[in-house]
Formats: sequence, structure tokens, C-alpha cells
Amino acid sequence: MATTRDPARETRDPARLATWFREVRQATEAICKPLATEDYVVQAMPDVSPAKWHLAHITWFFETFVLKPHARGHDPFNPQYEYLFNSYYNQVGPQYYRPHRGLLSRPTVAEVYDYRRSVDDAVRLLLERADERLFERVEPIVVLGLHHEQQHQELLFTDLKYNFGINPLRPVCQQREIPIGKAAPPMSWHAYQGGIVDIGWDGNGFAFDNESPRHRALLRPFKLGSRLVTNGEFMEFMRDGGYSTPQLWLSEGWATVRVEHWEAPLYWERHDGEWWSFTLAGMRPVDPHGPVTHVSHFEADAFARWAGKRLPTEFEWEHAASREPLRGNFAESGVHHPVPATGDGHGLEQLFGDVWEWTASAYLGYPGFRAPEGAIGEYNGKFMMNQMVLRGGSCATPESHIRVTYRNFFPPHARWQFMGIRLADDA
Amino acid sequence: MATTRDPARETRDPARLATWFREVRQATEAICKPLATEDYVVQAMPDVSPAKWHLAHITWFFETFVLKPHARGHDPFNPQYEYLFNSYYNQVGPQYYRPHRGLLSRPTVAEVYDYRRSVDDAVRLLLERADERLFERVEPIVVLGLHHEQQHQELLFTDLKYNFGINPLRPVCQQREIPIGKAAPPMSWHAYQGGIVDIGWDGNGFAFDNESPRHRALLRPFKLGSRLVTNGEFMEFMRDGGYSTPQLWLSEGWATVRVEHWEAPLYWERHDGEWWSFTLAGMRPVDPHGPVTHVSHFEADAFARWAGKRLPTEFEWEHAASREPLRGNFAESGVHHPVPATGDGHGLEQLFGDVWEWTASAYLGYPGFRAPEGAIGEYNGKFMMNQMVLRGGSCATPESHIRVTYRNFFPPHARWQFMGIRLADDA
Amino acid sequence: MATTRDPARETRDPARLATWFREVRQATEAICKPLATEDYVVQAMPDVSPAKWHLAHITWFFETFVLKPHARGHDPFNPQYEYLFNSYYNQVGPQYYRPHRGLLSRPTVAEVYDYRRSVDDAVRLLLERADERLFERVEPIVVLGLHHEQQHQELLFTDLKYNFGINPLRPVCQQREIPIGKAAPPMSWHAYQGGIVDIGWDGNGFAFDNESPRHRALLRPFKLGSRLVTNGEFMEFMRDGGYSTPQLWLSEGWATVRVEHWEAPLYWERHDGEWWSFTLAGMRPVDPHGPVTHVSHFEADAFARWAGKRLPTEFEWEHAASREPLRGNFAESGVHHPVPATGDGHGLEQLFGDVWEWTASAYLGYPGFRAPEGAIGEYNGKFMMNQMVLRGGSCATPESHIRVTYRNFFPPHARWQFMGIRLADDA
Amino acid sequence: MATTRDPARETRDPARLATWFREVRQATEAICKPLATEDYVVQAMPDVSPAKWHLAHITWFFETFVLKPHARGHDPFNPQYEYLFNSYYNQVGPQYYRPHRGLLSRPTVAEVYDYRRSVDDAVRLLLERADERLFERVEPIVVLGLHHEQQHQELLFTDLKYNFGINPLRPVCQQREIPIGKAAPPMSWHAYQGGIVDIGWDGNGFAFDNESPRHRALLRPFKLGSRLVTNGEFMEFMRDGGYSTPQLWLSEGWATVRVEHWEAPLYWERHDGEWWSFTLAGMRPVDPHGPVTHVSHFEADAFARWAGKRLPTEFEWEHAASREPLRGNFAESGVHHPVPATGDGHGLEQLFGDVWEWTASAYLGYPGFRAPEGAIGEYNGKFMMNQMVLRGGSCATPESHIRVTYRNFFPPHARWQFMGIRLADDA
Repeated sequence: MATTRDPARETRDPARLATWFREVRQATEAICKPLATEDYVVQAMPDVSPAKWHLAHITWFFETFVLKPHARGHDPFNPQYEYLFNSYYNQVGPQYYRPHRGLLSRPTVAEVYDYRRSVDDAVRLLLERADERLFERVEPIVVLGLHHEQQHQELLFTDLKYNFGINPLRPVCQQREIPIGKAAPPMSWHAYQGGIVDIGWDGNGFAFDNESPRHRALLRPFKLGSRLVTNGEFMEFMRDGGYSTPQLWLSEGWATVRVEHWEAPLYWERHDGEWWSFTLAGMRPVDPHGPVTHVSHFEADAFARWAGKRLPTEFEWEHAASREPLRGNFAESGVHHPVPATGDGHGLEQLFGDVWEWTASAYLGYPGFRAPEGAIGEYNGKFMMNQMVLRGGSCATPESHIRVTYRNFFPPHARWQFMGIRLADDA
Repeated sequence: MATTRDPARETRDPARLATWFREVRQATEAICKPLATEDYVVQAMPDVSPAKWHLAHITWFFETFVLKPHARGHDPFNPQYEYLFNSYYNQVGPQYYRPHRGLLSRPTVAEVYDYRRSVDDAVRLLLERADERLFERVEPIVVLGLHHEQQHQELLFTDLKYNFGINPLRPVCQQREIPIGKAAPPMSWHAYQGGIVDIGWDGNGFAFDNESPRHRALLRPFKLGSRLVTNGEFMEFMRDGGYSTPQLWLSEGWATVRVEHWEAPLYWERHDGEWWSFTLAGMRPVDPHGPVTHVSHFEADAFARWAGKRLPTEFEWEHAASREPLRGNFAESGVHHPVPATGDGHGLEQLFGDVWEWTASAYLGYPGFRAPEGAIGEYNGKFMMNQMVLRGGSCATPESHIRVTYRNFFPPHARWQFMGIRLADDA
Repeated sequence: MATTRDPARETRDPARLATWFREVRQATEAICKPLATEDYVVQAMPDVSPAKWHLAHITWFFETFVLKPHARGHDPFNPQYEYLFNSYYNQVGPQYYRPHRGLLSRPTVAEVYDYRRSVDDAVRLLLERADERLFERVEPIVVLGLHHEQQHQELLFTDLKYNFGINPLRPVCQQREIPIGKAAPPMSWHAYQGGIVDIGWDGNGFAFDNESPRHRALLRPFKLGSRLVTNGEFMEFMRDGGYSTPQLWLSEGWATVRVEHWEAPLYWERHDGEWWSFTLAGMRPVDPHGPVTHVSHFEADAFARWAGKRLPTEFEWEHAASREPLRGNFAESGVHHPVPATGDGHGLEQLFGDVWEWTASAYLGYPGFRAPEGAIGEYNGKFMMNQMVLRGGSCATPESHIRVTYRNFFPPHARWQFMGIRLADDA
Repeated sequence: MATTRDPARETRDPARLATWFREVRQATEAICKPLATEDYVVQAMPDVSPAKWHLAHITWFFETFVLKPHARGHDPFNPQYEYLFNSYYNQVGPQYYRPHRGLLSRPTVAEVYDYRRSVDDAVRLLLERADERLFERVEPIVVLGLHHEQQHQELLFTDLKYNFGINPLRPVCQQREIPIGKAAPPMSWHAYQGGIVDIGWDGNGFAFDNESPRHRALLRPFKLGSRLVTNGEFMEFMRDGGYSTPQLWLSEGWATVRVEHWEAPLYWERHDGEWWSFTLAGMRPVDPHGPVTHVSHFEADAFARWAGKRLPTEFEWEHAASREPLRGNFAESGVHHPVPATGDGHGLEQLFGDVWEWTASAYLGYPGFRAPEGAIGEYNGKFMMNQMVLRGGSCATPESHIRVTYRNFFPPHARWQFMGIRLADDA
């Protein structure tokens, strides 16, 4: 796990690291504020986890990788938690069967919060008392743990949405306003010359191991669409028979469409001839100007083929995005739903936030990539197969968590994250 | 559903029926007293239901069959509950998919209790205000609903046990004493002459439709074991290779043993060479003198074959049991676990309570049986296929719920009820 | 396996037994005459077996139970056949996985016929040379083997039909005439007084172990329909919404209807508004006067409920049938399809042959039944669970194979045998 | 499908094309020479097809894409073959369910050969009689059809091997010698400078669409192992706990190891402490000097990680291979098993033939790739997801079929092709 000083965060200062630790931990709990106890327990499909599992697992991360090796005399809160809340670290030990996380009523939510308190106290104490040499060793792991916790903040939003969304009562997770757009600005095309470009983490601030090594890539001239594809555009694809035209689809995509009976993005329902979609604020009419979301790579790819375009590679995306300011509709906005483009900017709109953008790139190691030694090396590298890269963060991503080099990845059929479409074309 | 006056309960008196209604409804809630909110939500396998589903469903029964047709101007508590809490009544309407009951965090436990209060109030009001003609029509349904609720009281015990039992923390559901036996009395054999005997409900008191019509059956001379098979006896079967000797098993039973890797009754675990079993009071050493429980029909049948005996038919059982007093270790004892035989009695011991006794009889309609018209007719009749009859009630059955003619039924592989073994033999 | 002298067959005479042996073995091969080599290989579902497997397995039966124990110096044709062609005899050894029988191209059909020749020769030699004491021991096993082979003759017809029927080419297995009926005679009802009746094998001739012990049963007065239910009557049930009315069905039956999308008997297809069905002679229009066949117990039971009747118990059936002559449309007629009733007789028509008649009786051991010792004891007893009894034989049953006490059994969802419906009613 | 003149083959000359057509068609049938009729029928897993299906499908390809559009008055051999032998061309029409290809006994093998004759005659007539303009249109499709048929020649070998290999009799498909190696030459490392290199089809001769467009790629300095990884080296990995060390594996690979109980390459069996493997010539001892084969990408990747190396990208491979002569152990050698390296050459050994070499590259379209219009466009493009590229051909590939730019692709868990390992490293 490559980490280094982050001047913005100044995590090299123990007091400031402690402050950031408190902030991130509190932000997680703030997400859960509106929940009833029951909402912490359920797991509506194997890919999602119960909220209380998330709360415990990110705490387990600190206990396992910070406290156990570095806090002298650390007494485990509960020895069985090592097994229950280990997600996938084989070098730590065996793991409770993932699809069964929602079968456990115990530990209770209150016990999980107690676990958090206990680990929080111990981490704070460790940071307070650490001499320079210990801090040197502990700091990168704490920083990694906080970025890890931010990833789970995003998953809390998307997993809660899924758990609420399958409930026939379609419950409201949190009351909030979702801005409705005026007419979306027309799509324009921004051209790039390509050539040899630099890709990957430049060594400043924090980055995950999969963003390294920085290396050169060769790009042909290309164009990117100025904004995300809208719901309205996606509805045209649907009206044109997009979901029933096999030649638009990858073979595995078409098989998925038929087996899963896909006819629209996830969470869309037709009532009296109008499309509605489930949001964290309950059922809402689909805004034709808003960005389409909750589409799989298969749908993004089929849409692009229908439109006579293609998806960008992750290298094209990163090259173009590296020239744009990092701003957008992130978790902090409190909307937790993508919002329409404004057409105000001069460059590309909506590159960051709103929805993760599917790329045409398989998730593989960069040239020269080797996963770190030890259990921490299982963080990213071992998932480099049968997944596609997404870029740019979403409306559920904390703003301080995203970077232009950030690589997210999901299998091509996944839809429950805030995933959307930016088009590309050959120049 | 055949019902008639029950002199014991005197349900024909509105005030007394209201009292019994209150008692049964309270007894259900008393079972849930020790639960944390989270414990109401989970469903560890498709056969069990979340506790809050049970609480809502038995309430739905009264709302659907008593209030909707008979309470003028009844306003449904929540129109979607008709769908969510309908178990299997096709004539009422479609049903939420059973294996997914544990995926719903809402309605919350508090909302379910509100639902109970609301329906309780309406039923009480209805009973209070009903004229004779209305009471005449309502009384049998209320009585049926109370027996239905008692069935779910038993299921609450067994489903909670299952949900707690799969949790690696093996949580204690309720602290309680489980008596340990002295040496079990030796098995003796009670002989019956057979001949033509009367079987089924005689028209006194309440009975389910599947206990009718009363009819004559022809029995050959037979013998019954004086007590239930003990854990110690079952361990002999295990030591003798019972679980690895195919010729002891029905073909489907042997296939189940191999696919499920059965090596002992459900809930048994070996620690340091000793057998322990999970109980509602947590892990306990297996008492060799206590009755074996949580065995499937396949295991009961294999054990009997190994012992050179057989299981009784339900007719043999009923004929013999009709001469014995109806007493035993029922839910009211507060133990909720089978207890050893005492050897004190002169007749058969443990016929009632402790464990349901697997019989050699398939669950089929009695000669002349026809299910009642309407949705209530779906209560029992439609399950008469691929199930075996069990008799006598268990340590989780309310005492006022059981009768000598009572027919319980489960598929031959089921183990999570309190099921056990009584041996029979030809005379 | 209970066997005794069969005066008709005179199997106690070595020469006559040898003759019968040759006849039965030849009859099996005659069934396969019209097959192409490829037709011997495939297995279109786990319940059916490839024809070459049948040919080898029934040969394996003689090798395993006659030659290996009784033919001095017997040299196995191929030691691996013990494993490949053992159907389910755990006491003989492990078995090749049943659903994969159709994955094996070898041994070839020619090799299987060689295997038959080799075993035929050895059995004939054994019978020729056996002294009285050896013959005494061998004769019941040979007779059992021949009845076993006759069972597989029936399965050859039904399995070939299934294998041909799923082929989109709908190939003709054998050209043959299927008689078309005039109007079916009206259904009349034959009444029986009931009382105590004798059931089971009386000790004359051959019988399987599951037909014993002979015992007394108590019947209430009942009536039986004079003929089988016709296709025309079943089409009325269909037109009346039989397949979409849940209250007509057992719960498990209704679940099967929905999961399997049943809308008509197996092999029925609608073309231009007319019903056709696949037969061993290819696609034919459904004859409204012919007996309905290829219906499950679930469909038979739902039809009876729709008609306001019920299915007979196996005891009612046997009691009534024991007064009727054993004649009907058997395999020897060469039609291999049920034919319409003639209305000529005075008693019950179509009791024997045409289609197996589903009864309301679960397949369980008769009072006092114990399976024989040894592998032969696995023949019948271990299947006594989750199956229903059928009576009377079918158009694919050899005439010399059937008896009034004969008990066939299949799970309630099975449809690929020639299965049909006779109605009963309380008197 | 990009095709152009192939000076070597001179397919632009009608007579020479007809000759090549005859040769390829005959080569296919020669592969099937040793088969018994039964061997043509079975399908031991969904990924393989029955030999008779292969024979019919490649014939269907010519009928569908050559005869139907171009042969005036073509009368389909059997209209249902369009459905039965369409593999996956949605634009042609629906397809018979792939996993059920082995359930069809008809058409017989003889009928399939008749179909071949009929289409062969029609194609030859068309080529003879075509005027220049028609030949212009037909020639690229015939050439594509022949390359398509060569692909199925390889699949015939690998599918037959699988079908024979699962048979407990382990039958010999064809008697043949498999050379045994002397000690394998030591692995040496060949270094390449990288930089900008040309990748993809240069426009000479035939190529599939997925080899275009030719484009430039940027390579870092790298090294390639001089020969394939041997069985002996792979056995070291096994002895070192390779199959039980999760940190060597991709996450999905490790899950596969556990679910499938992988402990060795496909077809390996241990007898008396020695490893044997199934070959088309039957069971043979594993030759430690021969190249390891029948390993998945997961195993290749884990082995490379264990060895401290990595797999090459397909661009590294193509760049290096473009400097080497195209020769090797192909199908024409008649061995149909990989053979040991000789150590004789100066460059890289075994690049072509022996085994397909797994690369680290996901199978995706080259920059600018668009699949052709029409059903032919479904040939390659729609499979560009969740598959990895393999390069170089195998001992089952016809020599005239392979090219340095040839891209084969399989999902990472596939093992039944002749797949092996070449190591790479950063320079």
C-alpha cells in the first residue's frame, strides 16, 4: 500500500491525524443516524452487507492492522470478531461466509457501537503516546484505514439503498431534496491529441497501491462527451428497443438481460406510463435531465454502441480529467443522488462526483505492479480479474477520498453502485 | 375448520373468549421478552421466519378472517400488510416470497407491536359489541385464530433457536435451568391387542379439520416402548456406525446424510471428545438420559431399523395414547428442552410434551376428509403430500393446545422442531 | 424377495425356466430393434437412462446376483462394469453418478450386446448343469431377474419416448398404428360395500417383496368410475382454468405448476388451436376419447377435486380389481399407447394395461413388512418415502409381468411414465 | 471479418480455393476416423460439443453464409438445422440450448455426413460456376468458413479428449506415440528493449477481425523465458503447497481452487505415488520434461507469482514472436500432445504449437476496433469481456491456421484446451 505525506491533510502531524481520525469516524456514524435498529441487520443480496457489519469491519481493520501489531498489551474486544468481521484477508485467517452476514442478529448494534468506542479510544491513545519511530510505522496504516473507512461510507449509502429498495414498502431512508434539472445542455465533444501521456499516482498525497507505478501510456487522438449521458437519452435507447436488440450487446450482457429480465436501469419502475426510480429519499419520478445511473457495464456498452460511440479507456479518462478541477456533487452535498449538468463550465462537466463512469478498460495491474507483502497486499491486487475500471467518484463518495488517478472496479454486471455513462469517440 | 363448544375453555361465552384472547396474545409476547430488536429480524433458513414476521402474521390472521369480513367499517392498518404477512393463502391473494422474509427491515418491531395493539383493540371491541348472531359466526374463527397463534408460539421457540444456533457466537436466548436426569429407566414394552379402533376427533372441544372425520381403523397386535429413545441410546447407534451404514437408511435418507454431511442430530457439536448441544439456554453437554431430539424422520427410521424395531403408525400411537393422561413437559414448564423420563408412571411415559414423535404414517386425509370451502380450507389439506405425521406435542407446545388426536406434520428431512423417537414393534 | 412356484410359468422346471429366460431376454432386444446406434446413448433427464445402460444393467443384475455367487469360476466380463452398471445397490458397492449416465460413449452398443451374450451363455450353462440343490438356490434369483428385466422393458419404452420427445425433430421411434376411438362410453359408477378385505400377495406365483405380507384392511363403502378419465374430460378441466386455479391443487403441486409452467399433460403441444401429443409413433392429434396419460399425481389429484371426486386408495383399487379379469392393452399389443374404452364389458374397464392409475395411497410398507437381508433387500423397501402408489400396469407393461397385487410407485411430480386417472367416490 | 488475398494459399484462384476447401473438409473428417458412432453423440460438460454437432455446425456455417445468400435456388437440407446447428448468431435466429446438445440422438451421424456431402457439393458447384463478381463476394466468406472449420478441428481434439477423459474406462481415442523428453534445457531469459512497437494484422493474408486494426503499443523493457514451463517445474510448485497457499492466487482463482477441489492440472491422477495424465492415447505417466498443459489462467498466474515472475502481455508476446520462425508441434505432427523443448534453437523455443500460452492481457478490442455489420460481426467482438488472451497455437492447431497476430481467448478458469505457461519478467 503506497502512502506518503499528504500536505493537504498533514497526516504526518499526530494531532492532526487524530483530528482527521475523529472526523472520518464520526462521518460514518452520521450516515447511520436516520436508521432504525432493524435497518442495520439485513442483507438483501450477497454483494451488500448489513450496516452493522460495515461499522464493525472498518473498526476491525484498525484493531487488526494498527492495534494488534502496535498497541502493547492490546486486549481483543471479542476474539470471535477476528473471524466475523474479516472480509477477505486470508493471511489474517478464515472468514465468516459472506452471503450469510445478514443471518446474524448478534452482536447487536449497541455492541458494535461499543466496539467502535473501544477501538477509537485505543487508537487515539496510541497516537497520543507514540514516539516518533512508532508513529512512523503506524501513520501509513491509520491513513489507509481512514481511506478504507471512506470506501465503506460509500458502500453504506449504496447497500442501504439496495436493502430499502427491495422492500415492497419502498421506505424512505432519509428525507432530502433532489434538485430537478432544466433542459440538459447539448452534448458537445472535446478533442484530445493523445500521444504518450503519464498515468498513475505521482507520489504526492495518499493513493492506493493499484494506482502505481506511474507509467507512460500511448493514446490515439480521441474525443470525450462534455457531460454524462442523461436519463432522457437512455429512455430513447429504451424506446428504440435497446433491451431487445441482441446485436447491441456483448454476449454475456445479452445473456444477463434475458436471465435477469432487465428492461430498464436498476430501481426504475413504471407507474401509469411514467418511469419512477427508487432513491434514498424514496420513490421519485425519473428526471430526464439527470444523469442515468445504476446501469451495468453491459448497459453502458450497449448504449454507447447504439449511439455510435464507445466508452473511454481509463487512460483517456485520466488524461482528460487531469486538466479539470476536482469538484462535483459528492457525498458532502447531502443529496446522494446525481444531479443534472448545468452547462456553465467551459470544460468537461460532471467528471467527478455524481456517478462512477464505466471505462472500456479491464482492471489489471499497471506495468511493474506488485502487491505489497503481507495481508495488506490482499487489499486490491487479488481482485484484478473479470472486473472493469470506473473513474471519477459519485454522489456517495466523500470529496476528500477521490483523486484523478483513483481506480474503482466492479464486475460488468454490477448495478447497485452509482454507475453511469460518459461517451468517447475516436478523433 | 371443524370447531365446536369447548367446555374447558367455554369459548362460547363472549367475556371468557375475550379473556382467553388476551391470555394467548400476551403469552406470545412473553416469549419475545428476552429478545433484542435485532433478534426479531433475521431468518437463518427459508423454513424459519423472523420473529417479527410471526408476530405480524398471526395478527394478520385475525385482521383478515375476523375483522375484514365481520367488523363494520374496518380500516386496514396498512394495506400492504395483506401481501407481506399472508403466509400461503392463495384465495386471499399473492404472498411475499417466503425465503426473503429476513431481507425486510421494515416494518420495524415497534410498528409490528402497534399493529398488534390495533388489531387487539378491534377484536376486543368486536367481541364486546357483537350480537348473538354475529358472535355465532365470529367465535369459531377467533378460536381457530388462537390455536393458530399457539402454533406460532411453538414456531417462535424453534425458529429463534435455529437463528441463534447458526450464529458462531452461540448466543443465549434466555437463561434457564435444564434438569439433568438420573439413569433413564430401562425400556419396557407395552402390548396392545389391536382390532378395530376409533381414530380422530370425537366432536368435543376444538380440533383442526385434519383430525376429522372420526373413523375406524384396523390394527394388528403391537407393542410400544415405554419411554422415548435417549441421547445415550442414540450415541450407541452413532458409535456403531449408524451414520455410515447405508443399509440402515431409506434411499432418500442416505442421500441426505451424504449431501448434508450429517453425523449427529442437529445442534450437536463435539468438543474435546464430548458431545454438546445448542439449547435456548446456550451450549450444554448432551445428557445421555434425556430424550434425543432434533432428528429427522430419516434418522428416527434408521435408528429403529438398527434397533430391530420400527416406528409406530399414527393410529397405533393414538390408540395407545387415548388411554393415558394428557400431561407432560410443555412450554409452560419454562424449560423448553426435553427432560429425562422418571420411570415413575405405570403406563407409557413422555407421550405428551418433550418431543414430537415421528410416526410411520404419511400425512394424508382421513377417509371422507374434504377441506372446508374458502381460504380457511387452505389451512391443512393442501399440505397432504410428502410429509410424515408426528404426534404428542413438545416442550415448546402450549399445554392447552395439544390433544390426543392432534396431527402435526413435517417433511422427513426436517430437524429443527423438537422431534424425537418412540419405538414400536409387532406383538 | 418373496418368490414361490409359478404354475403358469413353471419356473421350477430347469428347461422351462431356460426357455422363459431366452424369451424375456429376446423381448428386451426386440424393443431396441428400431433404434439407431445414437439412440442408445442419450439421457434427456436424470430420471431416464440411456437404452444401452438399461441393456447392460439388467445383464449386470444376472451377473452380480446369479453368476458371481453361484457360477463356479465366473470371470467378470469387465471388472469396471460392477461400478458402471450398478443402479443403487450400496451393499454391492459404489455406483456411477446417475445423472451422468448419458455422458459415456463407451462401452459401445456392440460391446454391451457382447456383454449380454456372454452373460446369457453363462446363465444358460448354469441352469443346464445345476444340480437340484443349486437350482433351488438359483431359481428364485433368476425369476426375480426376469421380472426385473421386464420392468426395464417398460422403462425402455418410456425413456426412449422421453429422449425422442425432447428432440426438436420429434423423431418417430417406431412406425405403428394407434387406434382412434369412437365416442367414449359414459362414465358409470360401480359401488362396493367395503368392510374387512384381504390385501397383498396370496403366495401363488411370483410377487415382489413389497406386495407382502398379505393382511386385512378395513374399507368404507366406495364407488369406482367405470373407465379411465379421457383426454376430452381433461381438456374440459383445462378449459375451465384447471391449471390456473390454486385451490384445486396441493400446495406442492401448485408450486410445481408455476415453476415448470405446466399447462397441459407432458408431450402435449398446441398447433393452430388443436392439441397434439408426441407418441412413440411421432406427433399425433390428441384423441378426446382416449385415456389421458402422462399426468402427475398432482394433476390427477387436482382433476379429481375439480370433478368433485377423489382418487381411489390402493386398497379400494385392489379389492375391486381382484374381481375383474386380468386383460387389457399391454406391451404385447404393439400399440404402446393407451386406447379408448369400448364400453363393451359389464364391469370396470381398463383396470389393467393402458395407463398406470394413480392412487391416493403413499407407498409404505404393509403391516409386518421387512425388507429381505442382503443387497436384494434394497430392491424395493428403501424407496418407501415421498412416493405414491400406482396400480394396474400400462400399454408398456409386459402382460406376464402384471398382477392384481402389483404396486408401482413414483414421486407425485413424475409424468414420463404412462400414468393416468381413475376416479373414486365415497358411497 | 477482415480478409484479403493470401499469396500462400492463393485463395483468389477459384480452382485453388476449391482444392483448399476439399483439403480442410477432409482433414476434419480424418480427425473423426477412429471414432465409434457413440463417440460422436456425447457432451460431457456444457463447454464441449458432441463431435457430430461440430461436423454439422461448420457445415451449417457454409450453408448459412455462402449458400443461402449466394447459391441461387438453394434448397435447405433440413429447415430445422438452421436452429439446431446455429451456435450463437442472434442475427440468424434462435439457437438450440447449448448445454443440451448432447441430449439429441438425431440427426444420426450418417445423416450429418450426408449433410456435409450435400453442402460440399453445392459449395463446389458454386465455386465452379461463379462469375468474377460473385466469386469476389463469395471468396472471403469461404475463406472465413475454412478458418472457422480449422478452429473446430482443434475443438474436436479437445472436446473428444474431455469426453473420453471423464469416462471411468479412460478409453483410448487414438493409438499414437508421445515422445518422451530428455532433461529439459535450462530456462534462459531473452531481453527486449520495448518502446513503441506495431501490433496486429498487417494486411497480408487472412486474419480475424479481432487482430485489427494494426496499431502502435508502448512496451517497457521486458524478458521472456526461453521455453515453456515444464511438468517438473509445476510439480515443484505443487510440492511447495501451491494449491493451498491463498496469497499466490487471485481471489476468484482461490475460490475456484476450493470449490472445484483443484490439486493438479486437469487430467492428472495420482496412482501409487506417481502422477499420470489422460491423453488422447490413454493414460500416460506425466513426463517431467514436457510442457505443463491443461492449466487455467488462475494456475498459470499463481505459478508465475510463486516463481517470482509474471505472465507476458499479449503485446510483449507478439513483439517477441514476430522475430521468430513460425514452426512447432502442430496438429499435423500427429502427436496431439505437447512435447519437450530440445534446447537446440538460438531464440525462444515452443512459441508456436505445443500449448496456447496464457497472457496477462484481457481480451478487448484493439483501438479503433469495430465489429463488422451483420451476423458475421458476432464472430468475435461480442465475446470481449471476462476472457483472457492466449497466443501461439497448440499441438491441436492446424499449422496453416496460426499466425503471430492470432488472438485466442478463454475465461480464466478454462482448462480443457491445451493451455500452458510461458514466464515473463521486467527487464
